[in-house]
Amino acid sequence: MATLLVFEFPSEGPFGDEAAKAYRGLAEDISGEPGLIWKVWTEDPDRKVAGGAYLFETGEQARAYTQKHSTRLAGFGITGIDVRSFEVNEALSAITRGR
Amino acid sequence: MATLLVFEFPSEGPFGDEAAKAYRGLAEDISGEPGLIWKVWTEDPDRKVAGGAYLFETGEQARAYTQKHSTRLAGFGITGIDVRSFEVNEALSAITRGR
Repeated sequence: MATLLVFEFPSEGPFGDEAAKAYRGLAEDISGEPGLIWKVWTEDPDRKVAGGAYLFETGEQARAYTQKHSTRLAGFGITGIDVRSFEVNEALSAITRGR
Repeated sequence: MATLLVFEFPSEGPFGDEAAKAYRGLAEDISGEPGLIWKVWTEDPDRKVAGGAYLFETGEQARAYTQKHSTRLAGFGITGIDVRSFEVNEALSAITRGR
């Protein structure tokens, strides 16, 4: 079953165009993640947070990525990571172009 | 700027295939929402919640939908609605097929 992940964590930046430059290589790497349908990158300089929403083909792939990405973020010195996982209704999502 | 919304609210169902039948017309209506790029429908029978993630072209369209959908859910007798809004980094999201 497709699974949606929502990550959020404290960030002092970069944001916007600077983030797009700094994280381009990371984004290219993430685009090849097994089972990843898409990732939307989120950020809020006012709240000083960044994160992302991800749609994975299966719950197992979402769990594997959660482990991998949490470890990677910790390696960047990022703590206080909030991860939420949601089961997806694929039939309804197909009608609204989400799947 | 593209904006991601994440809705979640208490639900006793329907879920899964029953939800797909019950909400098909609503999904078709939502698919025509101004500025909506996609909606992913979420559900969790164990936690007794349902919701959705939405990507909108602009923050203004996301805010208009938040108002409209919150009112609609209240009309269904649904309370305790949690809505989160996230700014989207479009350049990075394009690399990961999210935009």
